[in-house]
Amino acid sequence: MGFDPSYSVRTFKSVGTRPIRPDGFDKVTGRARYGADFNMPGQLVGSILRSPHAHARIRRIDTSKAEKLKGVKAVVTAADLPDLTNGNSDLYDMLDNCMARKKALYDGHAVAAVAAVDAQTAAQALDLIEVDYEVLAHVTDVDEAVKDSAPLLHETVFTGGVEPKPTRPSNIANRSQYGHGDIEAGFKEADVVVARSFKTEQTHQGYIEPHACVANVNADGSGELWVCTQGHFVFRQQCATLLGMEVSKLRVTSSEIGGGFGGKTHIWAEPVALALSRKAGRPVKLVMSREEVFRASGPTSATSIDVKIGVRKDGTITAASATLRYSCGPYTGPWAMLGAMTSFACYDLKNVQSVGYEVLVNRPKSAAYRAPSAPMAAFAVESVIDELADKIGMNALDLRIKNAAREGTRSSYGPVYGPIGIGPTLEAVKNHPHMKAPLGKNQGRGMACGFWFNFGGQTCTDLNIGIDGTVTLAVGTIDVGGSRASLSLIAAEELGIPYSQVQAVVADTATLGYNDMTDGSRGTFSTSMATISAGRNAIAEMRSRAAMMWSIPVEDVAWEDGHAVAKGDTHGNLAPLSVKDIAAAAAKTGGPIAGHSELVADGAGVSFATHICDVEVDPETGSTRVLRYTVVQDAGKAVHPTYVEGQYQGGAAQGIGWALNEEYIYGEDGRLQNPGFLDYRVPVCSDLPMIDTQILEIPNPKHPYGVRGVGETSIVPPLGAIANAVSNAVGIRMAHIPMSPPRILAALEAKRAG
Amino acid sequence: MGFDPSYSVRTFKSVGTRPIRPDGFDKVTGRARYGADFNMPGQLVGSILRSPHAHARIRRIDTSKAEKLKGVKAVVTAADLPDLTNGNSDLYDMLDNCMARKKALYDGHAVAAVAAVDAQTAAQALDLIEVDYEVLAHVTDVDEAVKDSAPLLHETVFTGGVEPKPTRPSNIANRSQYGHGDIEAGFKEADVVVARSFKTEQTHQGYIEPHACVANVNADGSGELWVCTQGHFVFRQQCATLLGMEVSKLRVTSSEIGGGFGGKTHIWAEPVALALSRKAGRPVKLVMSREEVFRASGPTSATSIDVKIGVRKDGTITAASATLRYSCGPYTGPWAMLGAMTSFACYDLKNVQSVGYEVLVNRPKSAAYRAPSAPMAAFAVESVIDELADKIGMNALDLRIKNAAREGTRSSYGPVYGPIGIGPTLEAVKNHPHMKAPLGKNQGRGMACGFWFNFGGQTCTDLNIGIDGTVTLAVGTIDVGGSRASLSLIAAEELGIPYSQVQAVVADTATLGYNDMTDGSRGTFSTSMATISAGRNAIAEMRSRAAMMWSIPVEDVAWEDGHAVAKGDTHGNLAPLSVKDIAAAAAKTGGPIAGHSELVADGAGVSFATHICDVEVDPETGSTRVLRYTVVQDAGKAVHPTYVEGQYQGGAAQGIGWALNEEYIYGEDGRLQNPGFLDYRVPVCSDLPMIDTQILEIPNPKHPYGVRGVGETSIVPPLGAIANAVSNAVGIRMAHIPMSPPRILAALEAKRAG
Repeated sequence: MGFDPSYSVRTFKSVGTRPIRPDGFDKVTGRARYGADFNMPGQLVGSILRSPHAHARIRRIDTSKAEKLKGVKAVVTAADLPDLTNGNSDLYDMLDNCMARKKALYDGHAVAAVAAVDAQTAAQALDLIEVDYEVLAHVTDVDEAVKDSAPLLHETVFTGGVEPKPTRPSNIANRSQYGHGDIEAGFKEADVVVARSFKTEQTHQGYIEPHACVANVNADGSGELWVCTQGHFVFRQQCATLLGMEVSKLRVTSSEIGGGFGGKTHIWAEPVALALSRKAGRPVKLVMSREEVFRASGPTSATSIDVKIGVRKDGTITAASATLRYSCGPYTGPWAMLGAMTSFACYDLKNVQSVGYEVLVNRPKSAAYRAPSAPMAAFAVESVIDELADKIGMNALDLRIKNAAREGTRSSYGPVYGPIGIGPTLEAVKNHPHMKAPLGKNQGRGMACGFWFNFGGQTCTDLNIGIDGTVTLAVGTIDVGGSRASLSLIAAEELGIPYSQVQAVVADTATLGYNDMTDGSRGTFSTSMATISAGRNAIAEMRSRAAMMWSIPVEDVAWEDGHAVAKGDTHGNLAPLSVKDIAAAAAKTGGPIAGHSELVADGAGVSFATHICDVEVDPETGSTRVLRYTVVQDAGKAVHPTYVEGQYQGGAAQGIGWALNEEYIYGEDGRLQNPGFLDYRVPVCSDLPMIDTQILEIPNPKHPYGVRGVGETSIVPPLGAIANAVSNAVGIRMAHIPMSPPRILAALEAKRAG
Repeated sequence: MGFDPSYSVRTFKSVGTRPIRPDGFDKVTGRARYGADFNMPGQLVGSILRSPHAHARIRRIDTSKAEKLKGVKAVVTAADLPDLTNGNSDLYDMLDNCMARKKALYDGHAVAAVAAVDAQTAAQALDLIEVDYEVLAHVTDVDEAVKDSAPLLHETVFTGGVEPKPTRPSNIANRSQYGHGDIEAGFKEADVVVARSFKTEQTHQGYIEPHACVANVNADGSGELWVCTQGHFVFRQQCATLLGMEVSKLRVTSSEIGGGFGGKTHIWAEPVALALSRKAGRPVKLVMSREEVFRASGPTSATSIDVKIGVRKDGTITAASATLRYSCGPYTGPWAMLGAMTSFACYDLKNVQSVGYEVLVNRPKSAAYRAPSAPMAAFAVESVIDELADKIGMNALDLRIKNAAREGTRSSYGPVYGPIGIGPTLEAVKNHPHMKAPLGKNQGRGMACGFWFNFGGQTCTDLNIGIDGTVTLAVGTIDVGGSRASLSLIAAEELGIPYSQVQAVVADTATLGYNDMTDGSRGTFSTSMATISAGRNAIAEMRSRAAMMWSIPVEDVAWEDGHAVAKGDTHGNLAPLSVKDIAAAAAKTGGPIAGHSELVADGAGVSFATHICDVEVDPETGSTRVLRYTVVQDAGKAVHPTYVEGQYQGGAAQGIGWALNEEYIYGEDGRLQNPGFLDYRVPVCSDLPMIDTQILEIPNPKHPYGVRGVGETSIVPPLGAIANAVSNAVGIRMAHIPMSPPRILAALEAKRAG
């Protein structure tokens, strides 16, 4: 439809305001329907039997006793989910992960499932399933896993990107490399070189709402799925393929979502629920417990990262390199690649190289977690930057400013940047009062920069105008952070009507075209593009209707400030027609008025942030308190500033938890020891200061309103900023995250002993 | 988008086949979700207190005791539904009907409602509501109601169309007149004139599923409604207006529908459920009992009709007139008007006049019932036609053929007909074996013709093509008789793909543009227009994508048999691209592929039928058995012949029940005496013969495939056909429907008594 996505300067009326979100009342009154809040008549309870072993061959599964139990309507194993992936290894990994085929590959790996009339019967049935395991040696640590002596998860020889080509199987599933220039030459130019190794432990997104779905497969093979997800269209395609259905025959409706942060971009139990329903001939509800979420959904990678950076005395970085090992669980992923791509993205570097290794371990399949893989890489790089500044006697902020990427910089992962916000965030930090606040004893200040790509992708929007001129906006990207409010603002802006007259809903997969999922901070960016495009199509239609109502040529009708206006003097005194006026006449001018858009949103603007953090470390307990925290980030254009600030604060809060406390703890037996919020410690309100935010707006030239994604960058700097702050507070370079009290105490004791 | 709706001859591949309906498995396995099959967390049970009086002033309602009962969360009366109708009398009538304001106007009229934690508490609460009634004189019979002495339902003076203008109030709410020519002169030309009066009793649509909904109004005033309805977009607008909401703020989702037949085109308890939810701050489920459905939903009118027709000895009708009195319950409606419009529509008449009177009575508000008002008028007219044939010694079929309307006939209600099917149905009857079958003792054969307008109206369709080339079709007209199957056939036909690759769903009001409801046999007609238009838009898009894939001009791409084809010899050997091929590449050629349509479907083709019926009357019991029944009807083009036949059979079956047994029986006290299927006798399977059908196809020139509506005409002839058959069997002209055993016995006894 000739949609022009490019930015042009404009004054906004709705965009940039802070109205109440449309889903707010529902949520605070408890009426919002989440994954477990939907029921179908006659539905069964689904439950999954999980491996107690980190690594075990499945010799035999005997489900006969379970099948005979009264009230059990279906028992499924991998045999009920035959491999229909047609060689698609990503899909095969999903399939094998949601129901183990030959081996259980981690503590919690699904091996069988039942559907029964109630939860108690389902639990009894699980007890009656006999699995004959051959327990195998396991490995859960990323550094152990790459050793020659490590037990192998797969017998396969992985060759993806690995040079020289390996001759025997290993747990390295993939290798990826980014960079340019000559790092050897660069390091030679350096006056000071710092090389250091870092480690981060595995964390979970910690969303409040566990995975839940209701599946219903009919005798004719069609089906429906109510599910808590970040991408119902993607779930539809993946589940349909795994179940052998045409995509149009599976209707997926997304529930409200109680947090996702990337963890709900992957299918877990959904194919199992569908297989149970298909076998039982009844709807099946499947809700994961918190323990199951920890053991068998997708935490982020544990990492082991080596960083080496060389700098001249004037602060110019001459070379930078990183080797990144990311655990991916039992199946390969893009995690090390993303770490390698993002590690040096904040800087303008002549000679840079980063190499990522995807490492298989007997842990759950790694999943996306908000700016996946970037926080760990940034932690390592930003730590070394601070150390270098210290060594050359330069302020760490000035060192960052000197080397910051700018428009025209060739990024470390390839593309040349357009207008970007890293420089402005650093300048803003320089002028921020936070930087001048005094620090006391045992206190330290740190800062760090962060980068995220932001995604675009396939997006559809239907905008329908009701008889009273109010608008329903059907979008296909899940609202994880207030996007219905933001997109309503966008539609209101484009049409020139009040925000209150737009109602946005997330449409199900049967009533809207395909949408990529809400990930990569693409939701508001991409869907606002489609909404603007749909709005412009609706305006074109309304101009045509107004022309009909006035009996004048459509070329003589302009659209101004939410009204059709007759141009020129030749048409007498025609009073402008509002959306309401035009809508009221629609039945007589051709029927209902709509605007539609299907597009690929290109041109997602990269996003940068700089965070400042003050901490106090108690030398007696090793406990760290965050005293003050400031986020400065470029939003391109903040559509709904309150929710942008919320994204900034939320990312920082999660980063604080990750930096200081959160980690998966595995025993020698390969079993997860802390699958619950009592032992896996996320920060609660009293653990956090008020997180201050500053929104910068460097317009994205490839979006009509200048919008960039904002949701993920905010979790990238915290690990580095807090590590720098703690290191400054304790006088020891902290290289292992989380910096939990035991680790800090150990570091202090080593220093005292040292 | 330049959509051309005109018919052109074509060979069909999908249309005209008989595949399994997509909702079939769901329905036969009990998994289809009807109105009562939806639940929301925390929902309350709504229940309505109804007037036990046919006519009573409401002096006072004391709800205080009910409100104090533990478990009661809201009690509402008319005060909770203030009049926001802004002078719209139709809406006011709906409002007053769903909750009585000053007077209870019929036995069953809602006067208050409660929402409580369970049904038992709700029932107790209803008992605790004290209503102080002043009981008034009532009138339930249509002939009694027009008498000067009749109690008045309203004090208002109705002047609509009534000449001379009345000077004092009456129960005549409206008058309408149709016709042309000079009936006085016409009757003078006649050799024989028959004038006779007829009466029909009130019947109910008898849908199996009672009205049910779940309403949920939020603290911010937005809301949602799950409801069994024939028109969720219309319900949205009506409920939103009555509740004071913007239409976009009320999201209405339609359930499957267990029958409607017009009775679910009106709002009944839905505004009450919404008001209860708003007051209680929780979702409210409201399901009407069968007794409530009979007492307080919308049966059809009882009628009293005078018909006079004059004919020359050669069979030429010289004049025809009718006076039709239709009961409308306590609020005016279009019922007498529709009776007046349809009464003589089958015939080519020089001089014709019909006058309809809308008569207020203390019965529930009349509602649409399949070809509303036409069956009673046809019964009266077709009876007189038979009597005239007898009098001039002409075969009744030949008399009909001689006077049948044809292309170019000015109809009795105004418009000039295009190509129509009344003549062909009569010719088909003439040649039908049924007409030659022998008749035995106490047996009789009758026939009758019937007409229905068929509607068009506002319609929207979204057609989305999935990555595997399968299609989801989102429509907005409720599927009451298999339209999802028919519309999938239409989409398959237009795109050139198999039926199995299309999945049609009824979208909710937030995800599609406004649609008029499924009434007037408009569903498949109108939505197929929008589907064809959307399909053509999708094809235009696919041609453009194919051009991109081939790097050739879009003008060089044709669409043939479900494939993009490169035209001419200049492009080498480009293999045709299927929908699947093009869909698979969509992400790289501009994003998801869709076709949309919003239109006003004009040009609904009128529909005619002729029915033949053989009966046997038991002279001892007065009981009538239908021996054989044949429906011949023009479908324009039968999209899915099995469902067209089903409509023909279903209309005949309902007509048989109406003609022979069904009636509302009111006591002297104005209370309904048979509000249940035990005492209100609908025909069951064993009461009916196999109903034979013959589909004629006279294409509607204003539909691309020639489609006409088919759902309603089939109920128009049965009353007349069966009355003629019974009259022939017993030798008495039966002028009162239903011809139940007591009425037939009375007629036989009167005849014997001489």
